[in-house]
Amino acid sequence: MSIKSYVQSHRDRFIGELFELLRIPSVSADPKFSKDVFAAADFVKKSLEKAGADSVELCLTDGYPIVYGEKTIDPALPTVLVYGHYDVQPADPYELWDSPPFEPVVKTTARHPEGAIFARGSADDKGQFYMHVKAFEAMMAEGSLPCNVKFMIEGEEEVGSSNLDGFVKANKEKLKADVVLVSDTHMISLEHPSVTVGLRGLAYMQVEVTGPNRDLHSGTYGGAVANPVNILCKMIASLHDENNHITIPGFYDKVEEYSQAYRKALNDAPFDLDAYKKELDIADVHGEKGYTTVERIGIRPTLDVNGIWGGYTGEGAKTVLPSKAFAKISMRLVPNQDYQEIATLFENHFKAIAPASVKVKVIPHHGGAPAVVSTDTPGYRAADLAIQEAFGKKAIPTREGGSIPICALFQNELGLDSILLGFGLDTDALHSPNEHYGIKNYLMGIETIALFFKHFKEQVK
Amino acid sequence: MSIKSYVQSHRDRFIGELFELLRIPSVSADPKFSKDVFAAADFVKKSLEKAGADSVELCLTDGYPIVYGEKTIDPALPTVLVYGHYDVQPADPYELWDSPPFEPVVKTTARHPEGAIFARGSADDKGQFYMHVKAFEAMMAEGSLPCNVKFMIEGEEEVGSSNLDGFVKANKEKLKADVVLVSDTHMISLEHPSVTVGLRGLAYMQVEVTGPNRDLHSGTYGGAVANPVNILCKMIASLHDENNHITIPGFYDKVEEYSQAYRKALNDAPFDLDAYKKELDIADVHGEKGYTTVERIGIRPTLDVNGIWGGYTGEGAKTVLPSKAFAKISMRLVPNQDYQEIATLFENHFKAIAPASVKVKVIPHHGGAPAVVSTDTPGYRAADLAIQEAFGKKAIPTREGGSIPICALFQNELGLDSILLGFGLDTDALHSPNEHYGIKNYLMGIETIALFFKHFKEQVK
Repeated sequence: MSIKSYVQSHRDRFIGELFELLRIPSVSADPKFSKDVFAAADFVKKSLEKAGADSVELCLTDGYPIVYGEKTIDPALPTVLVYGHYDVQPADPYELWDSPPFEPVVKTTARHPEGAIFARGSADDKGQFYMHVKAFEAMMAEGSLPCNVKFMIEGEEEVGSSNLDGFVKANKEKLKADVVLVSDTHMISLEHPSVTVGLRGLAYMQVEVTGPNRDLHSGTYGGAVANPVNILCKMIASLHDENNHITIPGFYDKVEEYSQAYRKALNDAPFDLDAYKKELDIADVHGEKGYTTVERIGIRPTLDVNGIWGGYTGEGAKTVLPSKAFAKISMRLVPNQDYQEIATLFENHFKAIAPASVKVKVIPHHGGAPAVVSTDTPGYRAADLAIQEAFGKKAIPTREGGSIPICALFQNELGLDSILLGFGLDTDALHSPNEHYGIKNYLMGIETIALFFKHFKEQVK
Repeated sequence: MSIKSYVQSHRDRFIGELFELLRIPSVSADPKFSKDVFAAADFVKKSLEKAGADSVELCLTDGYPIVYGEKTIDPALPTVLVYGHYDVQPADPYELWDSPPFEPVVKTTARHPEGAIFARGSADDKGQFYMHVKAFEAMMAEGSLPCNVKFMIEGEEEVGSSNLDGFVKANKEKLKADVVLVSDTHMISLEHPSVTVGLRGLAYMQVEVTGPNRDLHSGTYGGAVANPVNILCKMIASLHDENNHITIPGFYDKVEEYSQAYRKALNDAPFDLDAYKKELDIADVHGEKGYTTVERIGIRPTLDVNGIWGGYTGEGAKTVLPSKAFAKISMRLVPNQDYQEIATLFENHFKAIAPASVKVKVIPHHGGAPAVVSTDTPGYRAADLAIQEAFGKKAIPTREGGSIPICALFQNELGLDSILLGFGLDTDALHSPNEHYGIKNYLMGIETIALFFKHFKEQVK
């Protein structure tokens, strides 16, 4: 029987297995979930073995293990290297979840009339990398696996993949392949299937501003001693000018400027600004002057505060002049911006703008390079053909705002293109409360991935 | 025997009793300490009874009770109304305390070579109002109480004394007196004893800025959707101009400007800027251009962020574009500024400067009016004479930055001056970790308070 009917007949088991994986709170950012992250790695290992992969192993690192497995049917055939991650973002703020983040449930939404799985990691990335495990199982069961396959599923993507780099460099022979296939992005919609051909890079910093050496009474000292929160606000505010351009000297020096033709094509992709605003319940969008929303996300760098804290944040009123204030600040980068260079520019500038009345510490968290994928490769063509066969229409190439730093790593170390074949939607609440992933997206994804293998074999020939 | 020797011979018991009171975590701002706040009220009631007060009662309010007690020795004699508060500020951040905040210990410091009591509330205000209970006990024991006395010790000072207003208005007859005596301020030093003749008012606000209706992935949306933390920082930063003047329209309209002579006198009081900076470990002070540190604290209004929070504040890195950001912002006010009017000016301005891409909520917490005390009153003269007798030098009149809103209440409702006879030091870490109160200050305070009663009787004659 066909892959399609295999998926249909194992539908409930495929969903049930994903539920099991989603119940493991594998939050890599928070040490208190460490046991669970290892448990998730183990789950992935067993799934690959059950699906029929050979030499499956937990490759230990200084952080969380990388799960590796492979199936070589014929060394002469092309090899697809599947990348994914089993770790997830922290789930807080928990109180904003309508159901517990690690107890998956199915609910319908406007964009998922056939139901979506609500759980942290459902779309990013457990639900998406697990499609590859199931597609592999289906092809094995049907005896129709067209190419060799290698799996590399890591557990530190949400904290910067800090150990993947070393692993890839140390295992170039083992990871030898013809293309990397990744499902960790989204498509415009099931009606407008798209393939991501551009991703932004990331530089993530933490800053600490210290005023007096202890919390002070805001009455006794207020007005005479620098308040680190007020100062931090001034410093952060000054990082954007009145046109929302970033003011860090040198920040834009290497930013790629695109032709009017390229920008027109980008803006021609289906995008409904009113629906976008309505869905987010905002009266207006907000961004860099001179660019559309699609451009602001696709081809322009940004600077966002991801978290800020200082002083008294409890119940009621405390009249304190705090000693310290903190912020987590990240910048999304576009082609040609180097994240280490940007991190340095940020650090130097942030220290330079601090008044003498405070001390400033800047700690770089993690970063990653931007990536752009050519549409004129066997991999992209295979993705396009797989989508045409599954969805009945051509894939739309899009630029996404998120970051998958490892694409640059695979390009530089393994010489491989990464095909970003994602099936989530931008409204699936990734990194947010009530993250979800459409069941139809999950099942069509499995089918499309199997078709990718078929077409990739053809394209490489 | 004299008051002095009575205090000496009961020294250890006086300290021990204060320890008992300090062990009760009567944090009025945090509902989870509610039981303890009531326990503290009960402790005060029993202490007044033991000291010899009549008709002691817990006057219940919608919040925490006001402890009342009195001793009328002769209706023809003047009456002193003692005010204080048994509630304390929250103790967090707990991790910055060298010893647990509610387990008092005695340690010596540079400014307290004879030892200080470290505990939340030791100086503000348990240690200070309890001096009055002990001075009263001493005068009763010695049969030397020169005036009638009334005690009014409340439990909501740290949260705006919201029920005191109604109590005072409803009990004008019961509270009839000739002066209000308060020890809830500090003096320059034991070598430079001072009496506070000016206090700032307070307007305390909480603001909430909402961008998108949920936390978003900072990659997928960053740069296109308003980040409420960045916006809040911009809004807060804009509240001060480059000279650190507050930019809220109308904010300074009613601010009293002082003569050069007055400002000179203010600046003539002993103040060592280098020692001040060294003690706070700051390279420079920071405040309104055109004013000295003493003036910035004494006669100028301020705007400080007391707390800020939004987005991810946990371990590691989370690439979230938060839905909401919050801040607690308070303004210290000077004579003629009306705190309700200022709260309204703030609210209107803060909403006016919000961009269309966010929603803003402003919640006024609590406030209080500024107060200035004339030095040409029987009360002030009595305080000055008591200090001369106890310390051997004249009292220096000072302006303090903190707020005791109830002074205005007593003036308006009871027609009484408040004498602010405080014995703490500005370095006692009020509202901070490691709050402490000098043992010598405590004992000399008891003695000086008894002397106040003696001199007040003379002055009123």
